Amino acid sequence: MELAGVGIDLGGTSIKMGVVTPEGEVIARNEFATPDGPARPAVAELARQVRQLINSTGLPAERIGSVGVGTPGILDPQKGIVRSASNLVGWVDVPLGDWLADALGRKTKVINDAHAAVMGEIRFGTARGIRDLVLLTLGTGVGGAVVVAGQVVVGNRGLAGELGHMRIEMSRPRPCGCGLFGCLEAYAGAKNILKRMHEALADDIQEISLLKEKSKTAPLTVEDLFWAANEGDGIMLGLVDETALALAAGIANLLHALNPKAVVLAGGVSRSPLLVEKVREYLPDLVLNPAYLEDFRLETSGLGPDAGLLGAAAAAMGLSG
Amino acid sequence: MELAGVGIDLGGTSIKMGVVTPEGEVIARNEFATPDGPARPAVAELARQVRQLINSTGLPAERIGSVGVGTPGILDPQKGIVRSASNLVGWVDVPLGDWLADALGRKTKVINDAHAAVMGEIRFGTARGIRDLVLLTLGTGVGGAVVVAGQVVVGNRGLAGELGHMRIEMSRPRPCGCGLFGCLEAYAGAKNILKRMHEALADDIQEISLLKEKSKTAPLTVEDLFWAANEGDGIMLGLVDETALALAAGIANLLHALNPKAVVLAGGVSRSPLLVEKVREYLPDLVLNPAYLEDFRLETSGLGPDAGLLGAAAAAMGLSG
Repeated sequence: MELAGVGIDLGGTSIKMGVVTPEGEVIARNEFATPDGPARPAVAELARQVRQLINSTGLPAERIGSVGVGTPGILDPQKGIVRSASNLVGWVDVPLGDWLADALGRKTKVINDAHAAVMGEIRFGTARGIRDLVLLTLGTGVGGAVVVAGQVVVGNRGLAGELGHMRIEMSRPRPCGCGLFGCLEAYAGAKNILKRMHEALADDIQEISLLKEKSKTAPLTVEDLFWAANEGDGIMLGLVDETALALAAGIANLLHALNPKAVVLAGGVSRSPLLVEKVREYLPDLVLNPAYLEDFRLETSGLGPDAGLLGAAAAAMGLSG
Repeated sequence: MELAGVGIDLGGTSIKMGVVTPEGEVIARNEFATPDGPARPAVAELARQVRQLINSTGLPAERIGSVGVGTPGILDPQKGIVRSASNLVGWVDVPLGDWLADALGRKTKVINDAHAAVMGEIRFGTARGIRDLVLLTLGTGVGGAVVVAGQVVVGNRGLAGELGHMRIEMSRPRPCGCGLFGCLEAYAGAKNILKRMHEALADDIQEISLLKEKSKTAPLTVEDLFWAANEGDGIMLGLVDETALALAAGIANLLHALNPKAVVLAGGVSRSPLLVEKVREYLPDLVLNPAYLEDFRLETSGLGPDAGLLGAAAAAMGLSG
């Protein structure tokens, strides 16, 4: 029997990888900067790091099974091809799965990074065993993944789960980083929250906000927003409120469409208990029927930055199990 | 082998039922007004009509299998219970499945009416064989159903598919009949389209609209809207445009979340080629990536008013097959 699988979280900035047991224990781990330049040598380096990681466990190599990779961008998950990825410059139609399989002599599985994160949640996270689930990742942008009847929804072309680009505003939409308008991400993604913070502070001519001074001397962060709101800063409380309402509206849309048993919030923006509490308060006013909130949990992820590699490993172990 | 199943489309106004072959041929059909009053005698009458319908085929009763019922309201599809239904007065916690099974001596399956319609589409309609599909029913209100990997998504409590109550407007939301605000139905449901027609005509002080005269003497319909828009009525064209944009935004949200291979539009409002064409024109500007529209079809339903009973029969045949 195989003792473990390998999970890789391939990000635009860094690559995290781990050897993971079927119980979700990470028995060896490595993180390094994503290699710049063409894809072929980058994947060769990735394979080298995987071999080294497997060696570092001291386990017989044959007791460690398949390799799962969660990657950003547009994929062909069936063929393991990265079609394009805005965060991986020069990666166009890269047969990542085949290249890794050839270099390592192991089965590989390439999945979307958000799909990997949700697999981590249902296999190892607070949502363990939940068969109908939505994950919303609230980072710089907003991503997500949908699980129906225990299976991650990938869709016809592997493009499902772009929940951050659900449009929630038509008449006065804010621009989103993606080029569209009125997306959930334009209200609940960290980059856009920061933009709204700066706008609000520019309007704060009476210098009421606790962040007015800092904004003149240092870059603001979303953590500043939550700190100031917790201190009772009215302007920042208003922004948290607006963000929570947008999120709650997006979540209500997902409840109506899919009636999940849980929605899990992950990513930096989800780490504000104030925000999450406000989302919980808004939800009852935004659902068609109270039954959507019965036997339902809104949770934050407990897996943190390991979610991606854990989920990629879960996908790999699914291959070999 | 069973030759056919029975499908029932239980509506608030009328009940349609049919004996349906596995190929989707309706070999006997009946339609009658939904009985008023308490549920028990209404279900007894339903059973009597099913027996009569089966007899009318002249087939041996044992060659006709299970009975499927598509019903409105909040259900417990596992137990076959209608929890509540605003269109079926007095139906509270009605064990419809058990009552019918007892009365008929046949297996029964009770499903949501929109879930029945989508089963009709994937089994017998233009979407036959498509495994990732969204149905939007554009009637008085807007309903829907989602199919993922060939299975209708029912969700944790059977409440999935309320696509009409996807919120697409936050800052200036129109009220929806459901009590919420800014729902897709508030823009694309016939009742709300009519409301907007009346508002637009009230604003039409120069009497430009072709419908201005008629609106003073006769009740307007959505067919009037489409007629006038086709004649080039600028005010009505504006309304069709607004409706198409709302629909396209809702569809784009569903593409991003689920990446289906097809979206099927059904119901009266979908029978305007002008509207459907405008939705098609808007979609490319509203998706995150052109890949969502590759290998994708936006279609109108070919099943018409039989979709519900055909899908209920398909669900029933799934039971016995």
